[in-house]
Formats: sequence, structure tokens, C-alpha cells
Amino acid sequence: MPCFQFQLAHVDAGSAARRGRFQTPHGPVQTPAFMPVATQGSVKGLSIDQLRPTGSQMVLGNAYHLALRPGEKVVASLGGLHRFMGWDGPILTDSGGFQLYSLAKMTRIDEQQAVFRSHIDGRLLELSPERAVAIQERLGSDVAMVLDHVVALPNQPEVVRDATERTIRWAARCRAAARRADQALFGIVQGGLDVELRVSCARRLAELDFPGYAIGGLSVGEEPCQMYGVLDAVVPAMPADRPRYLMGVGRPADLLEAVGRGVDLFDCVMPTRCGRNALAFTDQGPRRIRNLQYQDDNRPLEEGCPCAACQRSRGYLRHLFMANEMLGPTLLSIHNVTYYQRLLAGAREAIVADRFEAYRLEKLRGWALGVGGQGMGVRE
Amino acid sequence: MPCFQFQLAHVDAGSAARRGRFQTPHGPVQTPAFMPVATQGSVKGLSIDQLRPTGSQMVLGNAYHLALRPGEKVVASLGGLHRFMGWDGPILTDSGGFQLYSLAKMTRIDEQQAVFRSHIDGRLLELSPERAVAIQERLGSDVAMVLDHVVALPNQPEVVRDATERTIRWAARCRAAARRADQALFGIVQGGLDVELRVSCARRLAELDFPGYAIGGLSVGEEPCQMYGVLDAVVPAMPADRPRYLMGVGRPADLLEAVGRGVDLFDCVMPTRCGRNALAFTDQGPRRIRNLQYQDDNRPLEEGCPCAACQRSRGYLRHLFMANEMLGPTLLSIHNVTYYQRLLAGAREAIVADRFEAYRLEKLRGWALGVGGQGMGVRE
Repeated sequence: MPCFQFQLAHVDAGSAARRGRFQTPHGPVQTPAFMPVATQGSVKGLSIDQLRPTGSQMVLGNAYHLALRPGEKVVASLGGLHRFMGWDGPILTDSGGFQLYSLAKMTRIDEQQAVFRSHIDGRLLELSPERAVAIQERLGSDVAMVLDHVVALPNQPEVVRDATERTIRWAARCRAAARRADQALFGIVQGGLDVELRVSCARRLAELDFPGYAIGGLSVGEEPCQMYGVLDAVVPAMPADRPRYLMGVGRPADLLEAVGRGVDLFDCVMPTRCGRNALAFTDQGPRRIRNLQYQDDNRPLEEGCPCAACQRSRGYLRHLFMANEMLGPTLLSIHNVTYYQRLLAGAREAIVADRFEAYRLEKLRGWALGVGGQGMGVRE
Repeated sequence: MPCFQFQLAHVDAGSAARRGRFQTPHGPVQTPAFMPVATQGSVKGLSIDQLRPTGSQMVLGNAYHLALRPGEKVVASLGGLHRFMGWDGPILTDSGGFQLYSLAKMTRIDEQQAVFRSHIDGRLLELSPERAVAIQERLGSDVAMVLDHVVALPNQPEVVRDATERTIRWAARCRAAARRADQALFGIVQGGLDVELRVSCARRLAELDFPGYAIGGLSVGEEPCQMYGVLDAVVPAMPADRPRYLMGVGRPADLLEAVGRGVDLFDCVMPTRCGRNALAFTDQGPRRIRNLQYQDDNRPLEEGCPCAACQRSRGYLRHLFMANEMLGPTLLSIHNVTYYQRLLAGAREAIVADRFEAYRLEKLRGWALGVGGQGMGVRE
């Protein structure tokens, strides 16, 4: 699959952080990279003209959401997901495994498939590994994800083990069903917080020879240190010559922790969701822009930030939220996505300079001086 | 007041439509012109980067709204309204007279001032002609409006007459209170649907020698033909060498009717409000984009429209609304503001070619072939 080549350019001297380049049919992705979430074919609040200057290279769509509404056939008839949403860069689609757990109603999973009710209108629907691949092939994303079986954490060991075994069997079925040469299919490592199970899952998926591998089922309420413990164990068990994608994570600090452990790709709704809720990320920690202290503050959210929000004053941004103007959520979402992209761009520079740990600690110090409490990573 | 020169370039051979140029400290406005409404310092849903390509030359702010929130002192401390919202073109602010009628609670008006309760938090507030001028001088708009006394229509003749007389006395007080040489103050002609009262009001305001004149208190529920009747009488009574501004109007057809009668400036929330409600204006009449017929329609809203919305398919725009994505309201607002600006740009071209009536009839025919029913003009 030469159109999905992953080239490792450099590994940081003081950590496992990697600088790479992931080639896709819609262009290259310089890694480590953060993918803004366009669940329903739109990065919430941002037009494509506003998304490009954030420095985003690849965006994430969601097969569950798009299959339910407007339907993958509609997207295909409108030219596929790239043309549909007007984004000519790379797109990764999640399969819907997470949404079967988080969003769908009355989900029942057996070996053949998941049967569930739509969260929109209660329709009874089915999602099998083969159908998850077919949906994503119709959407035409550059990277599709296998259908995984996600369970709540903490959970009984046999429930986690059973779901992980099913995830591996479903991964093989997805692999067998995939037809498009211009779409890469990534495997998803599950296993909850059981590091042995995680490592075993990673090794057995590696035997299936996927062009990339994700770590799923994290950032679902566990402590950050538990997540980092899983990464410590599982990342080294994942093929070094393939991109590694940590799904649905996370806070700025989580991204740097994971980059330092050798993760290459991320997605998270945090920058846009927090932006809609008047929380702006900065190197001094997050700012709650509704706070009265910003009322007549003439400074930008962050000095030196080139985004559209930082062309305005904090006082104006606060006013937009107090006055319920849509432009407030839009501008803070632009700022936060830009913040994440600048954070990752800085990480890429630091890796090639063999100073990633120093970079991470610089950022941590800045955040610690701020008001703290960045919240947890979440998925839509 | 040389920085507010109004130059008449041409009067259409077949109508009273005028092609002019209104100079302001923040640049010229080619007339006839439409001003998008930025009531609270934001054209709802649009960033400044999205507003510029619509062809908008001048925007409208509102002294009532901005004085209540965030307060004109806050706006002044953040550099004035231009810097606050990031718009370096001309800005006109309405005085708040209309909002005392439409929005404020328990408004009592006596000769000295209006006393009312804020629609936001019920605070008891006062607005006098002098204070309306002071607010607008602090905001720093290019054009300020006098404080007028707006009454509901239909109404008893003596109520309308009394409010009109007060509007004239208040106009004189505003004129006497105005201090800024870089801000033009426009008078407002009131008089309800009583054309004699309207003409008398226009003539008496003209004696006060304002640099521009508005027609207020229309588009408040009367029939379009009643409004046109008022315009037929009152526009010729307004000084020909000053810009004429029809406040809060209106539908595309209303704009062309008024241009043909010699009106130069307009503002209305219709393009953005309709856009937020999934109604798109086109030369074939309005499209309700939620309609199922657009589900897999690959065409743009309007062929040849250069706006960001028309870079996408109708099917995608429909999807955004069905999926409650903020981008839907934003894109349709961009389209509608662009539509209004293209309509007025076409009018300006038609006037200098002495074919304004032909232009108006072409547009009317196109709209009549569509689904019709463009709704009424409204103000926020």
C-alpha cells in the first residue's frame, strides 16, 4: 500500500517521541499530529476557510453519525466525504464502535454484529464489521477504522477480555472485507486497563498486518496516570514502522505525555467543545473567558497567537459570550484548534532537536502557573 | 462637515433611483447600499473575515444594546466600536429609539427622556436625546442617529402626531448635544402612515440641517403598499443632496422599490435571521434548505454566487441544518448577506446604465417564478 507510506524521520534522544510523515491519497500528515473532530462532516463552528489556517492537516469524521444522518449513500451521491464537506486534505473516519457504547440506545452485541437503536429517532439498526467497512468505503475517507467492541470501565475482567477477543476477530473480518486500495484500514487495540491483555491484543493485531494501529477505549473516565500506564506497556508492543493513533485523547498535557511514549496521531473534541463553552487554552493554562476580569481586558487571549480570535481583545470575546453571539463559540473554537496545532507543531520541532522532554516540561510549567484544571478528553 | 460628503453621481433616467458616494472617516460607501446588522458588535454568525467578502461596505451597530451590554464605557476602553469588533470600515449606530418601543420593558416616555427597564436584567434605566448622543460618541460610530419616539401602528392620530412632534424636538436636542466632528448625526423622519405628517416632519428636520436623513417607524407590520405610499410622499420632501436611509427594511423586493423612489441606505436583520432559520435568498426566490428535495442535490444554492456557502452543495447545507451544526446558520447567513450585496451592486450598475426599472422587473420575475413568500423585514 505505497500511497499510505509512513516514514519515521527521527526519534527523540530523550524519549520515545517520534517525528514522522504519513502519506495519504489526499496528502501527507506530519506527525505527531492532532486531528480536529468533524463528527457530522463539520468541525463544529468552523468553516473550511477557518479550519485551514489553524494548521490542521487531517480531520476526523464518524461513520456511525454519518450513516445515521444523512446516510453514507447520500454522502457518496454528493461526491464522498471530502467533497461533501469541502476538505481536500486527509480524512480519517472512526467506525462507530465507540458510539455503539456511548450514544446508541439498547445496544446488543453478539458475534455477528451489533443491534441498536438510533440515538436520533430510535430506528432499529445493525452494524457489523463488514457494514462498518462498507460505510467507510462509501464515505471515501483516507483512513478507516475497524469496528471495535468498547465496554465501560471499570468492568469485570471476563467482560473486558471477551470484548477484546471479539475486537480482534472483528478486526480480521474488517480486514477481509476491505476493498478500496485508496483507503487504509487501521486496527484498534482494546483491553481496558489490563496491560497484559492490551499487549496481547496489540501483538495479535500486528499479525494481521494493518497499515496503522490505534489505541481505543481510553479517556473514558479513568485517571490520567492509569492511561499513561497502559501507554507505557502497549505502545512498545505496537509495530514501530506504522502510525500509532490514540483515540479520543485528550487534554494538552495528555497529548504531550502520549507523544513522549511514541504516539503519532490524536483526535479529541476538547478544543471545539471547550471553545463552545467559553474555555480557551493558552500556554498559561485555560482561561474561562466569561470571567469578569476579562471585561475590559484589551489583550488577546494569547500573545503571538496568529488565530482570528487573537485579533480581538479578551473583552470583546467575553462580550460575545455574555451576549450569546454565535461568533464567541466560533472564535474560541478556532483559537483552541489553533492552540492544539501549535502545541503539536512545537512538539515536532522539539523532537528533531532532541529536546522533547524539555519542551514538555516548559509547557507543563506554563500550565501550572495558570488557573489549572483542563478537564478530561471526551468524544462526541 | 467635509469628511461626510455625499456626492450624487447619477440619477436613473426612468426612476428616482440614485447612484451616489457617501464619504465617512472610515472610507466611502457606494450607494445605494445595504448595511448588515451587527446589533451587539457582531453580524450574527459571521466573523469579520467572513463579512468582508460579502461585499458589505458599512455595518450597523445599536446604541441601546451596546449601552446595556457591555456598556459604552467598556467599548470605549477597548478602543471604540471599530476596534472592539475589528471592522475598519464605516459603522452607523442606531440610537435605541426603536428598541425602547420593541424590546425594553415598561417604557415611559416624557418630554425629558425615556425611562425603561432593561430587557436583559430589568434594571431601571433612562435614555434622553443627550444620553443617546453621548453613548454613540463613546462608541465612536461614523454615523449616529437621533433618538426618535417610535409608536405602534396603527395608532390614534394624536398619539402618532405627539410622538412625531417629540421626535423633532428631540432631534434638535441631539443636534445641540453632538460634539464629535468625526461623527455625522442623521435625523429620523417619523409620522406613521400619515403622509402629510411625514412630509411636514421631513421638512422641519431639513431646517435643522442634518448631514443625512432616515425614514423610521416603517416595516413594523404595515402592508408593503402602505410603506411604498409613505415613501412616494416623503422621499421627495427629503433633501436631495443628503443620503436617505430607510431603517429596518427589508425584503429584497422592498429594497428595490425603495431604491426606485430615491432611497440610498438600508439595514435589516432579514439576511442573517432568515439564514439562521434555513431560508436562503436566490434570484429564483427563497429556498427552504431543510426541504427534503435538497437531500442529494449536488448544486450550489445559486449558480455563479461566489460566497462560501455556494462552494458547497445544497445537500451538504441541508445536512448541516438537519444535524444542528452551527455551520449551517453561518453559511446561509453568509450567502444571504452576499445576496443582498450583489442585489444592491446590480442596482448600482443598473442606475448608471439608466435601466434600473428593467433591472427591478428582471429580479421580480425571477422571484415570482420561485416559491415566493419572502417574509417581512424586521429589526432585532
